[in-house]
Amino acid sequence: MRLDASAAGLFPIAVTPFTPEGAVDTASVDSMTDFYLASGATGLTILGIMGEAPKLDLEESLAITKQVCARAARIPVVVGVSAPGFAAMRSLARGAMERGAAGVMIAPPPHLRTDEQIVTYYAQAIEAIGEDIPFVIQDYPLTLTVVMTPGVLKRIVNAHASCVMLKHEDWPGLEKISAMRGFTADGSMRRISILTGNGGLFLDFEMERGADGAMTGYAFPDMLADVVRLSREGARDAAHDLFDAHLPLIRYEQQQGVGLAVRKYVLAKRGAIASDAQRKPGAGLTAKAKAEVDYLLARVARTDGRARI
Amino acid sequence: MRLDASAAGLFPIAVTPFTPEGAVDTASVDSMTDFYLASGATGLTILGIMGEAPKLDLEESLAITKQVCARAARIPVVVGVSAPGFAAMRSLARGAMERGAAGVMIAPPPHLRTDEQIVTYYAQAIEAIGEDIPFVIQDYPLTLTVVMTPGVLKRIVNAHASCVMLKHEDWPGLEKISAMRGFTADGSMRRISILTGNGGLFLDFEMERGADGAMTGYAFPDMLADVVRLSREGARDAAHDLFDAHLPLIRYEQQQGVGLAVRKYVLAKRGAIASDAQRKPGAGLTAKAKAEVDYLLARVARTDGRARI
Amino acid sequence: MRLDASAAGLFPIAVTPFTPEGAVDTASVDSMTDFYLASGATGLTILGIMGEAPKLDLEESLAITKQVCARAARIPVVVGVSAPGFAAMRSLARGAMERGAAGVMIAPPPHLRTDEQIVTYYAQAIEAIGEDIPFVIQDYPLTLTVVMTPGVLKRIVNAHASCVMLKHEDWPGLEKISAMRGFTADGSMRRISILTGNGGLFLDFEMERGADGAMTGYAFPDMLADVVRLSREGARDAAHDLFDAHLPLIRYEQQQGVGLAVRKYVLAKRGAIASDAQRKPGAGLTAKAKAEVDYLLARVARTDGRARI
Amino acid sequence: MRLDASAAGLFPIAVTPFTPEGAVDTASVDSMTDFYLASGATGLTILGIMGEAPKLDLEESLAITKQVCARAARIPVVVGVSAPGFAAMRSLARGAMERGAAGVMIAPPPHLRTDEQIVTYYAQAIEAIGEDIPFVIQDYPLTLTVVMTPGVLKRIVNAHASCVMLKHEDWPGLEKISAMRGFTADGSMRRISILTGNGGLFLDFEMERGADGAMTGYAFPDMLADVVRLSREGARDAAHDLFDAHLPLIRYEQQQGVGLAVRKYVLAKRGAIASDAQRKPGAGLTAKAKAEVDYLLARVARTDGRARI
Repeated sequence: MRLDASAAGLFPIAVTPFTPEGAVDTASVDSMTDFYLASGATGLTILGIMGEAPKLDLEESLAITKQVCARAARIPVVVGVSAPGFAAMRSLARGAMERGAAGVMIAPPPHLRTDEQIVTYYAQAIEAIGEDIPFVIQDYPLTLTVVMTPGVLKRIVNAHASCVMLKHEDWPGLEKISAMRGFTADGSMRRISILTGNGGLFLDFEMERGADGAMTGYAFPDMLADVVRLSREGARDAAHDLFDAHLPLIRYEQQQGVGLAVRKYVLAKRGAIASDAQRKPGAGLTAKAKAEVDYLLARVARTDGRARI
Repeated sequence: MRLDASAAGLFPIAVTPFTPEGAVDTASVDSMTDFYLASGATGLTILGIMGEAPKLDLEESLAITKQVCARAARIPVVVGVSAPGFAAMRSLARGAMERGAAGVMIAPPPHLRTDEQIVTYYAQAIEAIGEDIPFVIQDYPLTLTVVMTPGVLKRIVNAHASCVMLKHEDWPGLEKISAMRGFTADGSMRRISILTGNGGLFLDFEMERGADGAMTGYAFPDMLADVVRLSREGARDAAHDLFDAHLPLIRYEQQQGVGLAVRKYVLAKRGAIASDAQRKPGAGLTAKAKAEVDYLLARVARTDGRARI
Repeated sequence: MRLDASAAGLFPIAVTPFTPEGAVDTASVDSMTDFYLASGATGLTILGIMGEAPKLDLEESLAITKQVCARAARIPVVVGVSAPGFAAMRSLARGAMERGAAGVMIAPPPHLRTDEQIVTYYAQAIEAIGEDIPFVIQDYPLTLTVVMTPGVLKRIVNAHASCVMLKHEDWPGLEKISAMRGFTADGSMRRISILTGNGGLFLDFEMERGADGAMTGYAFPDMLADVVRLSREGARDAAHDLFDAHLPLIRYEQQQGVGLAVRKYVLAKRGAIASDAQRKPGAGLTAKAKAEVDYLLARVARTDGRARI
Repeated sequence: MRLDASAAGLFPIAVTPFTPEGAVDTASVDSMTDFYLASGATGLTILGIMGEAPKLDLEESLAITKQVCARAARIPVVVGVSAPGFAAMRSLARGAMERGAAGVMIAPPPHLRTDEQIVTYYAQAIEAIGEDIPFVIQDYPLTLTVVMTPGVLKRIVNAHASCVMLKHEDWPGLEKISAMRGFTADGSMRRISILTGNGGLFLDFEMERGADGAMTGYAFPDMLADVVRLSREGARDAAHDLFDAHLPLIRYEQQQGVGLAVRKYVLAKRGAIASDAQRKPGAGLTAKAKAEVDYLLARVARTDGRARI
């Protein structure tokens, strides 16, 4: 299976489950994969920023890739391969594809500044991993500090046939989706898949602007899948109603730094993973924060029974 | 009137009204001030980042200060005086106090890095403006890129008797409020006022962590005042219910860059200002964005009639 | 007198002389201007970063401009007008021209990232100050963090007839000079003046790459003028010999943060200004550092008698 | 052999030799090691920033480590192990020590801001690699954007017995050396080794401030060794004379980005490595730049015959 530009729906950004001692929890890798499949995932993304990828060594990364790809064989798996250098990126990308990945995701390194530097970086990266591997551009300026204009994204897409998707995570980013779809409308760029991130904080409107779905890790992927579906069916009010019921928790989970702890706490409560442990370094939740999350879950549960946990 | 550490409630971050041609709209300065007073403001903050302060020259800044202080004579007015140098900061701070301001707000410049640099900067700023002017620390790392730990804030508070308030705008920031209140509990720092920003995105929980109120500019200051009041009365569920009804719009308005356009658009709709114009440079709203805001207003109006505009 | 694209030679970046108490030292403003004239300056730049411009208020800035322009009436004076907003930039630019300035210099603010943002910023700045004022682009990524490619600079030059000069201060920057001159050779950009900065650290080769001279503040402007002259006369070895004799001190003065203290220390020793005081905040030299500078001066003096002070 | 706080002299930052096709040139790894030994190196540092370490995969990094440690068995070899996560850092550190390394070097990642974050990062890194491995703090704010005060460095040294050296590369940094030595003088910190970087640009004065030697990669390590020796012998003028003769080239080589190309070009000319190729991405030298380096070499050769190549 190879990722292509028709990808749509929900690609959860998978967490990486660890035991409280910091080892990869392989049993939870399976249960988590099953959980995402049951939630309506049409694809899966592993080893992203929220997957604690930089804390893994190469061997661990490839082992997780192999296990997930085998378990989720019926949907495409995207593997994050951002790395400080192209040798490591190539090793991970080729290794991931050999183990069943459908494509890879590449984020620009924080030192890039000019349009030219960004376009050149992607050209070098694609030369390094090979033109035969479908890839996703990760556009996440809030964390990466690299700002890519719609025009720069268009240049990358047009230069590389293997570019099949934009992980859209700019903030604010609604106009960028409209701009990218405008390029397709005016014939200056072929259509690629656009899946959106940012913890889902703008998913309601992103769908209406032309996104094909979500690629993000909010602890209720089943809700994300529902919002995507409702929006595509044209059930606008219903999509917003469901989304708004979750928004207080989405907002809470989207806090930089703390967010992953919230996400794992809820996923563990829901039984997707055995422990909410992060590998070091990683901030845990205080008792006050846990109580706040519990309060939010109880409030969401008034509308969406899946939050009654 | 002088700002002191007992300040609480709602200090709206006032916009600066302009005509479509870019002149300061003095009639709207009055109507806007009246609007904030009617919304339950217990104080007012002008010439902040969202007040387009850097686009004003000194004369304009002082004229606005004089007009607002006269109009809002019964509540304290805080004036943003962040400037690239201390001479300009002193001119603005002394000039503002002479025109009726109750205190000033100072943000750290983006080049500061170490704890020592931050503490030293505030010492130099206070020496420049004078120890007789009450001041507010603006802690806003997302935009300013300066990270102040609770320990650094404590050092600044303890070093300067004229420090009376923290404008808390870290993100995530709930634990920081708890830490600051912990310093007062353990006797290592006198109690100061903590008002929170970030467009109100976490106001519900910030109040529960120990904030004294809000200092932010969401276009429904009346709602912010209600949430602060309900929270202080212990009506937790009621506070969250009201807050959650507005959260989809709060979230939309909190987008970096676009947010001010949304805020002015709604304030103009509500009659607080005559025009939603920003002085250049400033991004306007596309037709799609306006329609999205209108849709959100209609949805909020189902719960809160004030949004029916 | 108006600055135009034929400007060449030496435009010293003038310091701003202060008394030990922090007031502008007007007597030294005159003596400093005379010193630069006697050093062979063909122009003068005031109120730049190394002129402590952000520490001055508007009134002081305009007073200094008036005094220097009157004193240096026979050469063009460029005034730095970079400001956090366009209203302040316009006030300073128009005020400076009324007081005799020949042109202004504009640096991009640190938050700019994409090519489009940079080009747009200059368009807005020129609209604000007026198309009738000749301006200089300051390209100084090391301090400003904004990276402008040759292509971006070309777009700005071609868009604005009032752009007459590039203050080149990229690091490394030799290839950029060649690229800019290449644009003129291939007819894609009209020729503008290129003067180079960075404390003169690469002046020897910058001249050979096509620079028209230096715009920097090293404490021996007379040496800079000589190197520019020798280089233009084709006396390559002589230019390098003189330059190399000063390089140990140039290098010492070019230290970020400390550099201005070194420069003022030497200028005071040479009698150009009465005191080496900086307005707060500003780091002074330790006794060890002063001894190091004295040692370097003594070594330079073996080759260049002007350093015997 | 284990690195300890008595380390002094010259630890060249070794380049990594590649063939024009981008493979590691193992023959040149040997010849380069021999060249450094013959130049008077008392230690060697490999896989640093200028060693193109991020372009290597783990296997290559360990193979180079093994080869160099075997070849340079009589001197300690320090291995750069900075990595985006602690799992990779641990793998590389333990693997390097097993292959004969004497210690490792750790740079702080660019996202660190507060004093507390920096101190915590080193604590976590040391926990990850183990307290039995001697380590070097790399303090290089110009590239890494992390600013460590002397006080923060002291806290790290005092917290970790395995911290034996500071690679000092702040700019400006002379006062920092004095401050660190002051901590030893006042008894608040045990003495550690301080070797300095920055391409050697301030080596003359760094030695006089208390550095124990140089850890940098200028293409004339034999000259660096001589300057260190002369300075330690108290031959101040002789040290400066030799240093100044090389300064024009040191300055040219120290350009960010271009510097490594210059360094490899000269090392190849000197026969230390077979090719000046960098692995992608890496900027080469233009013909003009090569001619400039050749001119500088010829000028250095008038004083130091080793530059006659």
